[in-house]
Amino acid sequence: MASKKIQSALISVYYKDGLEPIIRELHTHGVKLYSTGGTQQFIEELGIPVIPVEDLTSYPSILDGRVKTLHPKIFGGILARREEKHQAQLAQYEIPEIDLVIVDLYPFAETVASTDDEKSIIEKIDIGGISLIRAAAKNHQDVAIVASRNDYPFFLDLIQNNKGGTELEDRKELARRGFLVSSHYDTAIFNYFNRGVQEPLFKHSLIQHEALRYGENPHQKAVYHGDLEEMFDKLGGKAISFNNMVDIDAAVGLIREFQDDEPTFAILKHTNACGVATRATVLEAWQAALQADNVSAFGGILISNTKVDLATAQAVDEIFYEVLLAPDFDPEAVELLIKKKNRILLKIKHFNAQARNFRSLLNGVIEQDTDMAIEDEADFKVVSKKAPTTAEIKDMIFANKCVKHLKSNAIALAKNAQLIGMGCGQTSRVDSMRHAIEKANRFGLDIQGAVMASDAFFPFADSVQLAHEAGVTAVVQPGGSIRDQDSVDYCDAHGLAMVMTGVRHFKH
Amino acid sequence: MASKKIQSALISVYYKDGLEPIIRELHTHGVKLYSTGGTQQFIEELGIPVIPVEDLTSYPSILDGRVKTLHPKIFGGILARREEKHQAQLAQYEIPEIDLVIVDLYPFAETVASTDDEKSIIEKIDIGGISLIRAAAKNHQDVAIVASRNDYPFFLDLIQNNKGGTELEDRKELARRGFLVSSHYDTAIFNYFNRGVQEPLFKHSLIQHEALRYGENPHQKAVYHGDLEEMFDKLGGKAISFNNMVDIDAAVGLIREFQDDEPTFAILKHTNACGVATRATVLEAWQAALQADNVSAFGGILISNTKVDLATAQAVDEIFYEVLLAPDFDPEAVELLIKKKNRILLKIKHFNAQARNFRSLLNGVIEQDTDMAIEDEADFKVVSKKAPTTAEIKDMIFANKCVKHLKSNAIALAKNAQLIGMGCGQTSRVDSMRHAIEKANRFGLDIQGAVMASDAFFPFADSVQLAHEAGVTAVVQPGGSIRDQDSVDYCDAHGLAMVMTGVRHFKH
Repeated sequence: MASKKIQSALISVYYKDGLEPIIRELHTHGVKLYSTGGTQQFIEELGIPVIPVEDLTSYPSILDGRVKTLHPKIFGGILARREEKHQAQLAQYEIPEIDLVIVDLYPFAETVASTDDEKSIIEKIDIGGISLIRAAAKNHQDVAIVASRNDYPFFLDLIQNNKGGTELEDRKELARRGFLVSSHYDTAIFNYFNRGVQEPLFKHSLIQHEALRYGENPHQKAVYHGDLEEMFDKLGGKAISFNNMVDIDAAVGLIREFQDDEPTFAILKHTNACGVATRATVLEAWQAALQADNVSAFGGILISNTKVDLATAQAVDEIFYEVLLAPDFDPEAVELLIKKKNRILLKIKHFNAQARNFRSLLNGVIEQDTDMAIEDEADFKVVSKKAPTTAEIKDMIFANKCVKHLKSNAIALAKNAQLIGMGCGQTSRVDSMRHAIEKANRFGLDIQGAVMASDAFFPFADSVQLAHEAGVTAVVQPGGSIRDQDSVDYCDAHGLAMVMTGVRHFKH
Repeated sequence: MASKKIQSALISVYYKDGLEPIIRELHTHGVKLYSTGGTQQFIEELGIPVIPVEDLTSYPSILDGRVKTLHPKIFGGILARREEKHQAQLAQYEIPEIDLVIVDLYPFAETVASTDDEKSIIEKIDIGGISLIRAAAKNHQDVAIVASRNDYPFFLDLIQNNKGGTELEDRKELARRGFLVSSHYDTAIFNYFNRGVQEPLFKHSLIQHEALRYGENPHQKAVYHGDLEEMFDKLGGKAISFNNMVDIDAAVGLIREFQDDEPTFAILKHTNACGVATRATVLEAWQAALQADNVSAFGGILISNTKVDLATAQAVDEIFYEVLLAPDFDPEAVELLIKKKNRILLKIKHFNAQARNFRSLLNGVIEQDTDMAIEDEADFKVVSKKAPTTAEIKDMIFANKCVKHLKSNAIALAKNAQLIGMGCGQTSRVDSMRHAIEKANRFGLDIQGAVMASDAFFPFADSVQLAHEAGVTAVVQPGGSIRDQDSVDYCDAHGLAMVMTGVRHFKH
């Protein structure tokens, strides 16, 4: 494909870093330059001839610059097809061809972030510049568009390698980047206007990203659109994988349910916690979390809500894990832990759950409020004759936090602020109940006097019966079944305490 | 707030349905109308005076309409602030004020869908119209924008209730809708240019939506951005819930693994299949699917890949389910099934899995290729001394399809094209193995001679050992553990066949 030489260019940009070599290169090839305002001055100061756009349009920049380039003499020169009929019209109306447009946009989103002054924000909505970008991108058959300083190096390379020309393929790529800029820009403006409006729209335009090695499985390509560094300092270990991220998301969601002054450790596998415990020290919390299922812990995601000291690091270091997260680490702990090159060590800097969450599904996207609810004693309504003891209430609050973050159907057994058994991801609730009991027994944890939490109501009394027979003495559940009374009756007949929260916590 | 009277309007639209009453209403209030082309003719035919835009600009529509309205005389009149300085400039340059812009855009996405001709598609990229919309929306302090026929009724209401005027609040809402149109439009264009480009960008702009009663739980608001009617004909039942949709997505994903000529039924709960079977008839497939776990089936999502006849409908009708999906139903089957008003009946019209899937997570969005891989006999590499029999191969293909769609860690036991036990969503693989065996035994299904599929490799030989002791004779798994040989050795020592596929199917 033959390269097309650039004859004339319109240049008007906010960001002049990296512009100089482009202008010099264009000048070398005898390109006629049109410009406005600060960019015109910048070119003049390089000692390179430049024609003010006003000379072309015979119109001054009016209305405080609101209308500068919106003129047929400019848009005609950009939009004309390079064919006889259009060329004749350009000649008739004395419109010069423009082959290259270098125009960028002031970052609207940054303005919104930096001020609340509506007038200043509205003033920053670019009209002429974005029209130039779009017109040049549309006519990429003959015109090149550089719509962002990010594309300066790419474009400079192009014209250096093509002796001041561009190829169709390159102009098409530049057009793609131009529409990336324009669509992103208008999405930011729309989001500004849409603040506080309840209309359900799905509108996301994320440019920042990190490539991942692959997705859930090696045959799936994947990417994360977001900024991991904003949330975590990576102190050591290999690259974070797709599945690591899914697990980390689940882990931070769970750990934030616990207060900073209650040292808590959790161990997750495939997004589900197989161990959680709160203790007086972080080391004890780790030991108690591990105790619940030291088989599943292998290759797990570990998270602490408390600074990890050397003693805890030494204990954690004994098992193989994928990721360890904590708000802080003693220097000696880091020194020890980073020796294992494959294990990812993350210091949690900052994490706020997104208020809405979404996923693609069928032919669209499903979006919902994030489940931010968590129940405390005040939300517990005692429905059994027997009232729970203070210790049972504390454990039910703990178990309810755990079960909220297990995949449905889910059951959590807890005693003395320790998860002692759990069942999750089952197609029937009673199966989760069976698994929780079976696991507690297998790992030698005593269910006698434990509490049980369920993420949703019991359709039958069978789960409560199994729990009671295993030693459970108090049950927390949302309630809401037409057969709730069956479970309550069972509790009353067998001396169990039961509280209802009214808040279901399905999670899939 | 005082209503601001409209003095002059620029109207240029593709879609003229619903425009007439607006024009008549504006005319009643003495609004001066400017227009172009077809819209101008439309207004003239109503017998209402209209000024051609060309008279205003003294420029004809040049370059086949590529440059029509891009002129300071028009943009100045839209963008000027209604204050002394700007007014003086308008007067000096004889630019009339424009208070209202009614301009729409040709639907770009529809053009792309209807043709592959690049030239026609590029020609449809609107430059002038979108600039007018954006300029008017920017200056909503004084100018009203109607950017879509969808907003005609809203706008007509406004001017009827305000005697030909608008209020700032209304103009702001119209501006919001204007930027919704422009951002959506440029996202569609970007996506066109971005086809086949591998650069990872997250760019989604979905306008169509259906409100859902609530999200995963009643305290979470939710919405589906997509078109359910494109995929399904709803023949009966209550509104589809958030959790129904999540389950339906899992159900169609699973059922499409099976060929049309093998009648297959699946029963899902919380996205996991608790029953799947292929049989000579749809009734037998249903019966065999139900047999695997008739407890979990209660309140389940049922899906068939084959037309449901009356006999099957009668059998299905005996249990309580949430949703039944099939490609078709005999009329008598529909008649019977719709009697239960709460049960959702969906005829699958059309379903194509999205090539990429994504979900929000941490501070961003994670996106990956959809897992489209599914292994056949040709992908099976026999790694054991004993080769699988033809029947075992058939069952391993079946079991592998099932396990692919179960949440990780997952194990599926199958025999004679029937899922006879499964374990899923577990924090350790061997737990899934235990659950699968326990379930098969509990529901009286004979494991002797069954096959076992695992969604990922075995870290130890323990799962294979449990399977063998329960009666399994052949195993399919991806392989990839550093201890693969342990499992192979176990098979060889105990006469099992094992095949590896090389393809992992984690699902979360």
